[in-house]
Amino acid sequence: MKAFQLQSFGVEHLQPVEVPDPQPGLGDVLVRIHAVSLNRRDLLMVLGKYDPTQPLPLIPVSDGAGEVTAVGEGVTRVQVGDRVAGIFAQKWLAGELTPEAHTSTLGGPLPGMLAEYAVLHEEGVVRVPDHLSWEEAATLPCAAVTAWTSLITDGHLQPGETVLVQGTGGVALFALQFAALAGAHVIVLSSSEAKLKKAARLGASMGIDSRAHTDWERVVLDATAGRGVDHVIEMGGATTFARSIRACAPNGKIWVIGFLGGNLPQLDLFTALRGKLQIRGAFVGSRRSFEAMNRAIAAAGMHPVIEETFPFGESVQALQSLRSGDRFGKTVIRIA
Amino acid sequence: MKAFQLQSFGVEHLQPVEVPDPQPGLGDVLVRIHAVSLNRRDLLMVLGKYDPTQPLPLIPVSDGAGEVTAVGEGVTRVQVGDRVAGIFAQKWLAGELTPEAHTSTLGGPLPGMLAEYAVLHEEGVVRVPDHLSWEEAATLPCAAVTAWTSLITDGHLQPGETVLVQGTGGVALFALQFAALAGAHVIVLSSSEAKLKKAARLGASMGIDSRAHTDWERVVLDATAGRGVDHVIEMGGATTFARSIRACAPNGKIWVIGFLGGNLPQLDLFTALRGKLQIRGAFVGSRRSFEAMNRAIAAAGMHPVIEETFPFGESVQALQSLRSGDRFGKTVIRIA
Amino acid sequence: MKAFQLQSFGVEHLQPVEVPDPQPGLGDVLVRIHAVSLNRRDLLMVLGKYDPTQPLPLIPVSDGAGEVTAVGEGVTRVQVGDRVAGIFAQKWLAGELTPEAHTSTLGGPLPGMLAEYAVLHEEGVVRVPDHLSWEEAATLPCAAVTAWTSLITDGHLQPGETVLVQGTGGVALFALQFAALAGAHVIVLSSSEAKLKKAARLGASMGIDSRAHTDWERVVLDATAGRGVDHVIEMGGATTFARSIRACAPNGKIWVIGFLGGNLPQLDLFTALRGKLQIRGAFVGSRRSFEAMNRAIAAAGMHPVIEETFPFGESVQALQSLRSGDRFGKTVIRIA
Amino acid sequence: MKAFQLQSFGVEHLQPVEVPDPQPGLGDVLVRIHAVSLNRRDLLMVLGKYDPTQPLPLIPVSDGAGEVTAVGEGVTRVQVGDRVAGIFAQKWLAGELTPEAHTSTLGGPLPGMLAEYAVLHEEGVVRVPDHLSWEEAATLPCAAVTAWTSLITDGHLQPGETVLVQGTGGVALFALQFAALAGAHVIVLSSSEAKLKKAARLGASMGIDSRAHTDWERVVLDATAGRGVDHVIEMGGATTFARSIRACAPNGKIWVIGFLGGNLPQLDLFTALRGKLQIRGAFVGSRRSFEAMNRAIAAAGMHPVIEETFPFGESVQALQSLRSGDRFGKTVIRIA
Repeated sequence: MKAFQLQSFGVEHLQPVEVPDPQPGLGDVLVRIHAVSLNRRDLLMVLGKYDPTQPLPLIPVSDGAGEVTAVGEGVTRVQVGDRVAGIFAQKWLAGELTPEAHTSTLGGPLPGMLAEYAVLHEEGVVRVPDHLSWEEAATLPCAAVTAWTSLITDGHLQPGETVLVQGTGGVALFALQFAALAGAHVIVLSSSEAKLKKAARLGASMGIDSRAHTDWERVVLDATAGRGVDHVIEMGGATTFARSIRACAPNGKIWVIGFLGGNLPQLDLFTALRGKLQIRGAFVGSRRSFEAMNRAIAAAGMHPVIEETFPFGESVQALQSLRSGDRFGKTVIRIA
Repeated sequence: MKAFQLQSFGVEHLQPVEVPDPQPGLGDVLVRIHAVSLNRRDLLMVLGKYDPTQPLPLIPVSDGAGEVTAVGEGVTRVQVGDRVAGIFAQKWLAGELTPEAHTSTLGGPLPGMLAEYAVLHEEGVVRVPDHLSWEEAATLPCAAVTAWTSLITDGHLQPGETVLVQGTGGVALFALQFAALAGAHVIVLSSSEAKLKKAARLGASMGIDSRAHTDWERVVLDATAGRGVDHVIEMGGATTFARSIRACAPNGKIWVIGFLGGNLPQLDLFTALRGKLQIRGAFVGSRRSFEAMNRAIAAAGMHPVIEETFPFGESVQALQSLRSGDRFGKTVIRIA
Repeated sequence: MKAFQLQSFGVEHLQPVEVPDPQPGLGDVLVRIHAVSLNRRDLLMVLGKYDPTQPLPLIPVSDGAGEVTAVGEGVTRVQVGDRVAGIFAQKWLAGELTPEAHTSTLGGPLPGMLAEYAVLHEEGVVRVPDHLSWEEAATLPCAAVTAWTSLITDGHLQPGETVLVQGTGGVALFALQFAALAGAHVIVLSSSEAKLKKAARLGASMGIDSRAHTDWERVVLDATAGRGVDHVIEMGGATTFARSIRACAPNGKIWVIGFLGGNLPQLDLFTALRGKLQIRGAFVGSRRSFEAMNRAIAAAGMHPVIEETFPFGESVQALQSLRSGDRFGKTVIRIA
Repeated sequence: MKAFQLQSFGVEHLQPVEVPDPQPGLGDVLVRIHAVSLNRRDLLMVLGKYDPTQPLPLIPVSDGAGEVTAVGEGVTRVQVGDRVAGIFAQKWLAGELTPEAHTSTLGGPLPGMLAEYAVLHEEGVVRVPDHLSWEEAATLPCAAVTAWTSLITDGHLQPGETVLVQGTGGVALFALQFAALAGAHVIVLSSSEAKLKKAARLGASMGIDSRAHTDWERVVLDATAGRGVDHVIEMGGATTFARSIRACAPNGKIWVIGFLGGNLPQLDLFTALRGKLQIRGAFVGSRRSFEAMNRAIAAAGMHPVIEETFPFGESVQALQSLRSGDRFGKTVIRIA
């Protein structure tokens, strides 16, 4: 089969190769990958910045969707013909994060999805909603599950609560869509009026232009009658964190989305403590959360937002596109 | 002021009287009642079946809404002109139910709202959403707070979950509306096709005619791909409970709405235990839940469903109307 | 190897047999079983009352502990020499109960532990605390995990709360020990003064002789200054349930321990609802709960209570012993 | 009555004064204060660093205990002769923190307890356990409730979990005692071997000398078989925070105890996120938590740790004593 392999760290070392077709063993399924989506983690992995000890060569990219074309002995959960996506951490089936989840992630340390086929254990895939295209289904494993697990599984978002979403990247837009679906107010922060308009069409109740309002936390407080927001989808930038803390209602939860690099800035301790704020690391989620999310996506007929789609042969360009700053939705590669 | 007073138990002993206007003391507010709504508890109270030891005379009816026309010394939470509703349990401000909440309920043991004015402590009222009429605001304190507290505060309802609502009474329709608002599937069970059609317009995904499908739990299981529902709003009837248990998904929660009288029938222990089902008593909720609910109602522009409205003078007829079985929404009395 | 096999339902049809030694496949481990413990479910299974559709022959008994003597290809979680117990539901690793957990239980539908060897998937075993004997370790999978999951994992038992434990069977004594470990008050209900004395030595704060106090719920209320208890370990008998409801504090949780047969009696709806009680089916628990429990047992140096131990050859007598009513701890069979 | 009053900010401006005895109004109780305890917040308040806008003069100090000597009209919760402590945030009765709790705290903005008498609303006091002396009871309102609310109410601490406690100040020792009571492992970090010995006598499983082990997080990881701890009682120092993050197990919770001044240092984002850690502001707790804690203290016969007791006349010296760094327990002033 055709695949892209990383021979040594660096985007320029991501090469198309021809490798033997993988074969499903006991309990495994063979998936014909139709599309993958990219996350910042994939870029950091390729650059050697996510885990410099990752053995190479590696087929990168964690998120992909496709059709089951063969199953190994003993498989009962999945059938040939099922439309599935891989789960990011193959060993995280339910409940809270475990250490072993970290060593079971696709696209490093385990082989990824940037290939025509992948073999996964039957426990490591979920069925995707029927109404989604392959490209749409491929956007779910990291970005959507991160947003869902934070706001819904862990955050118990309620109708009438307010969510502040920073930016319009993959996790941000899923957070916006899920929060709107759950009956919450959503305030989106972006440096682009055009993006704010698109966010409004996705269900945002309010948009704040972060260039026009550098003290945007005041706008947030005004818009919530001084109360502040219940949840922040925080991109962890040095300039935003202190403002996020001030924008929170008591007991507010700041979900810090990872892999944006750098350290967190110093925190305004006094404000954070007096509000009993929670600063919480967001790190994808379990298969159980993925399945619950899929039921919600199916029930609502929701569609993920795709910004751009590249053909398989232009996978390197797709990864490079991720480096450009401001985004609106996911970058996808169509494989077949 | 004019009021209705219960001199001795029995609907026929509910009499219009002229009593002195109440005066707000330290920390109190005076509310000009514009509308009240009726709950089954009010009827049982009048009949002497809710609490036969209730001292009389009593101004009955717990749920009412009106305008603050005066405040006592030291009041800071509320201002003259505020549109408010009383909270059912005056001492239940937040957190879990306490014994003292039970002795602080309006319409018995404390005086109720079936009067032109009521004095409440400033901690015992909440502001109602601006877009609601007085009649609509008056429906909230018991029925809406019960549905909200069960499904949202305690039940952590998620988008994509499924809720089975039995009937179309006050609590049932609020449960339907809140569940739809939270992105859940709602299945309504009713003996009337006409009511099912109206429920669909309120957001129900599916209706089941309980006369056409006496084994309605099979229809529920079929509709959920054999999985069952995550929540049941259970009216506790002898014929439905065993079916509700069988209609539940593992970990399903059956919220038993009170005051319908009688005992629960025997439970199908084996099925209930193997599913780790939760059978949970629903009993209104705290002021904090009421306030969170009001934010959600305001954000969504939601309107409660009123079946019928009586003038103040026909309060006895209004109570008698409650006794007739099948309903669709709330019964309201307009006072001023 | 030697095993006991059920050829047809009935204790008298449980026969010693010689069967081929099981071999560990990909991902499997071979366990030399040293001891098993019995649960009422095992007896019901043998009698054909738990699941009359269970295919036979079957090696019964779900709970056993032993040493890993071989591992199949690809095994990484477990090593030869590890002291392990099987988990009751082989597919319930973490999080909430799923339907597939029910079809993955040992001792039916899957083969059980009443044999010299068992093969389990490496995900289906947990290491047992070093300080426990084989007999003690064998008591954990059903009874201890049920008590732990109810009170600790799901019930969030706090220091200073009160737990009412009915009887002195396997689950009851584990509940007593875990509750004492967690800093809770424990009240034990038993028809035997001798058993109450032994319960006191295990950490019970108070014992109530249910023969001397048929209205024992009054004694409970008196002992808790009228407040009632926060948790009941309820054996589900027809005579106790209504009393348990009256013995509960507001928000009390009644954990109904399964497999005692029969239906639940009618419930006192009004009291249960006004207290916002929770009646919750208890059904073992996940591997994650089992592992957390083992950490607590190890940290505390706790020892399970074994009432009687039978040699392997007297397995039938051991099962018959379970039928006799009143117990104090677990029945164990020593295999090697 | 005699009191200490702050005329202007600065410890030197804390002066003994004679002021009129306070009188209980409607719903109030008059408390004869027997002892108060000091918290860092009291010192910061006196220095004008906690809230520079605090109106003066002020009777400082939030935590005190005493006997009810008179009750105002309408009081039902409390009786003359009751032994009570004030709750820190007078308006925080139950549930989650609210903005109004912040403006209802004793010792600023409301008058404090460094006086012979205090008047509080009947809702603003709790009964203290019978076995505690006045000095012991006075230590509870801030330090003990902060530790309890973090680990128990919010943190759902389980038997067998591990808690890392930094230092041996008031909150730290209560956290140690409550964690031990709940069946948890406790690791104490201190720069003093003598204090570690005393901590062991209070129930600590392990002590780490932070001078001998500057890389103490490695010792923690070794002691937990590489797993890390489930909870950290974090004093928020610039040198410890990054180590605390590395010392945590996945899903670990770092409870940041406030009022130690300064900003939090930069966080190690990558480690924190990959572990789904929670960094949570700890801010005292509700009356409901206080009452639950008192039940646990009473049940266990637990005694708070008092480091030093000053007579009323030496209140200024007591406050100054707080400034000296390393402590072991609470500083108390005996008033009568």
